[in-house]
Amino acid sequence: MNSSAMFSDSHPGLFTDLYELIMARAYLTRNMTGRALFSLHFRHLPKDRNFLLACGQNYLVQMIRELRFPADQVDFLADMDQFDEDFLDWLRNFRFTGDIRVLPEGTPVFPHEPLVEVEAPIAEAQMLETLVMNYVGTETVLASKAVRMVMAAQGRPVVDFGIRRMHGLDSALRSARAYRVAGIAATSNVRGSQLYGLPVNGTMAHSYIQASGDETDAMRTYARLYPGTTLLVDTYDTLAGVDKVIGLARDEGLEVGSIRLDSGDLGELAAEARNKLDKAGLNDIRIVASSGLDEWKIRELINQGAPINGFGVGTELGVSGDAPVVDLVYKLTEYDGRPCLKKSPGKLLLPGRKQIWRQTGKNRLYQGDILGLYEENHEGEPLLHSVMRNGELLESPPEPGDSRDRVQETLTHMPPELLQPDGAQRKYPVTISDRLKALHQQALRDVS
Amino acid sequence: MNSSAMFSDSHPGLFTDLYELIMARAYLTRNMTGRALFSLHFRHLPKDRNFLLACGQNYLVQMIRELRFPADQVDFLADMDQFDEDFLDWLRNFRFTGDIRVLPEGTPVFPHEPLVEVEAPIAEAQMLETLVMNYVGTETVLASKAVRMVMAAQGRPVVDFGIRRMHGLDSALRSARAYRVAGIAATSNVRGSQLYGLPVNGTMAHSYIQASGDETDAMRTYARLYPGTTLLVDTYDTLAGVDKVIGLARDEGLEVGSIRLDSGDLGELAAEARNKLDKAGLNDIRIVASSGLDEWKIRELINQGAPINGFGVGTELGVSGDAPVVDLVYKLTEYDGRPCLKKSPGKLLLPGRKQIWRQTGKNRLYQGDILGLYEENHEGEPLLHSVMRNGELLESPPEPGDSRDRVQETLTHMPPELLQPDGAQRKYPVTISDRLKALHQQALRDVS
Repeated sequence: MNSSAMFSDSHPGLFTDLYELIMARAYLTRNMTGRALFSLHFRHLPKDRNFLLACGQNYLVQMIRELRFPADQVDFLADMDQFDEDFLDWLRNFRFTGDIRVLPEGTPVFPHEPLVEVEAPIAEAQMLETLVMNYVGTETVLASKAVRMVMAAQGRPVVDFGIRRMHGLDSALRSARAYRVAGIAATSNVRGSQLYGLPVNGTMAHSYIQASGDETDAMRTYARLYPGTTLLVDTYDTLAGVDKVIGLARDEGLEVGSIRLDSGDLGELAAEARNKLDKAGLNDIRIVASSGLDEWKIRELINQGAPINGFGVGTELGVSGDAPVVDLVYKLTEYDGRPCLKKSPGKLLLPGRKQIWRQTGKNRLYQGDILGLYEENHEGEPLLHSVMRNGELLESPPEPGDSRDRVQETLTHMPPELLQPDGAQRKYPVTISDRLKALHQQALRDVS
Repeated sequence: MNSSAMFSDSHPGLFTDLYELIMARAYLTRNMTGRALFSLHFRHLPKDRNFLLACGQNYLVQMIRELRFPADQVDFLADMDQFDEDFLDWLRNFRFTGDIRVLPEGTPVFPHEPLVEVEAPIAEAQMLETLVMNYVGTETVLASKAVRMVMAAQGRPVVDFGIRRMHGLDSALRSARAYRVAGIAATSNVRGSQLYGLPVNGTMAHSYIQASGDETDAMRTYARLYPGTTLLVDTYDTLAGVDKVIGLARDEGLEVGSIRLDSGDLGELAAEARNKLDKAGLNDIRIVASSGLDEWKIRELINQGAPINGFGVGTELGVSGDAPVVDLVYKLTEYDGRPCLKKSPGKLLLPGRKQIWRQTGKNRLYQGDILGLYEENHEGEPLLHSVMRNGELLESPPEPGDSRDRVQETLTHMPPELLQPDGAQRKYPVTISDRLKALHQQALRDVS
């Protein structure tokens, strides 16, 4: 189960912005070989979001360990006339030699808290920027959206149908890992399931009914071939479709597991369908719903008491429709032992090697985080831990199933208002430690 | 320059929703081996959009030609107990044997017009659905957003900085092809440039200035190493940064090509910077701007006369922030010579094998399309053409550079109001031919 199975021949070294390479060469030419510290974090939560679920960072480290620049990529750079032979040789021999600290997969994370810290000779650390942001950003966006759907469904299974709407093949495949961590019950994505162990699930599309000509006949042959399957009932007329299922299940004894509603007023249709099924004594046939669902619509259906047993979500999950981007930044905070800041208006940047302590109250709920310097001591659970030292992996990346269990446990400690789809009135408190505050003030004086 | 260079070992056969396989087996078990016709199209334009730019379809065909199911993937399916040995053998021997018609890369396309039509034995055509939607959807979303930025910039170069914000590696790489077609001037994306020939471009990040300690010194060493480079001026104070550049360029004779503004009020800062540079006699130093730009902000800066020579766009371009998804559907419209429809409320589906005729008025502007049946004859340019017959490619996919030229030419024929960022008052007219209307009515009667 290799995280880069679809990319085994890819050598993502040149998966980067050109300026990373231009800067790296400039650092090396000037003999700037001191160690740099970079922090991957975000400054603001998207609208309506109370936290993000940090994902992908432990798998990223595997890619970094294997980062190389094959000959054809170096030749491409050589043709650009921006790079001297010394630098091209440095790339040919490249191996990452630094240290990396990360949050565990699926950790709820808040503004200014590092998801990843990279410490390495500056040219090496700089060159990782684009890959780190894209790789962790993708899975964090996907897992953060997925957990909202899971919370809204209040225990009912949420199944991912999003692969067809996602951006490209890589995002669609890795989503199966992020969704597994976030608590999605199953996916329609076959290859993603094979790679990352999220159960795979699927039934029929309208095209099957259309091609078969007669709807009842299509349902009959399908349920015979796949006993216990889910039948789509809305190809022509939803409630007439339900009646046909009832005929097949009650009168012909066909084994039908569920019906799926995929258009119209899902709440109303679910109530009518449930009523019909129950009257026919088919209490065991479940109702699943899909069609443009998001966390708000799921919550509304549940609040109105719609008898829906599970949800299929596609588009909104697959691209995180309300927030397709998180403003992750990968910022230099220290070079050669000296804190480094920039002072662009409105963009707080905290210096130093950090730790996050998550504090639990007597009610077992998280009551806030302390964001401080790594060498400090505070009460609470320290969240950042080393996964790479001198370019060597200290541990294998976690199994997605273990991360999923950890997320489930974690969510029981989250203040309940943070688990709602809407932005909470009271933001989760992240307190900057006195020592980090003092270092920040000192660093600001140094750049002014 | 292989379109699937990052995926050469991937075998995207199982890049699919499970139901495609479940249905395929059901078709085969029932001896439903008739030919099916599927149409890839969208029903509604996203808000504020006047057209989409169809992209990716000609490259998709290459993947389809090479679609196979390697042993480990078939074994994975075998373990699911949903597939009999006949079907698994069919997969082991799979080769697509059908016909495919597509629009040329970069064709402006409107609701209900097919981007792709697939005609093949139904099990084969069904199995392509997920891959077709994801593959063409991704590049169509990206190119459609990019062309809006290009139009808003009115001839000034637009450079892509989006790779770090995009969803996954595949989307970020293929974006370089879609952006090239759409008219983006250059990209920061090195590997994308290598694969798809969009010029690559990049300079420096704030971290270089921060790590160097002294801003002037950082600028000096950089411009010496890279004569004619772009210097970032906003690390500490934008206008003070401009003064430092002036000192280096005028007094020390350093060769500086441009300055880049990356925060604050870009219009105001550009005006003040231009004024300072011109007063110093540095009229040749150009000003480029970035920082959260989209097509509306670019238009506003140009309308207010901001002296900006080029734009860098990242986040909004990379995920198509206002419309990360297009509602592409891949719908069965005919099976075994019989038109097939479904009747889900509000979802028009037109039957039959189609052609689009694009009609040009005396003013050289497109005045409307006729959407009719393939065998009809109408005035105008027929847009769909065959690229695959019996599983064999009829032509090589176009060079992205040729498609780019074609798009540039095409845009000169578009009614000007459709080229604005806002939704036009008058929608572009797509007329359904009388014969297609009649076939639609007939098909509706058949399913009622």
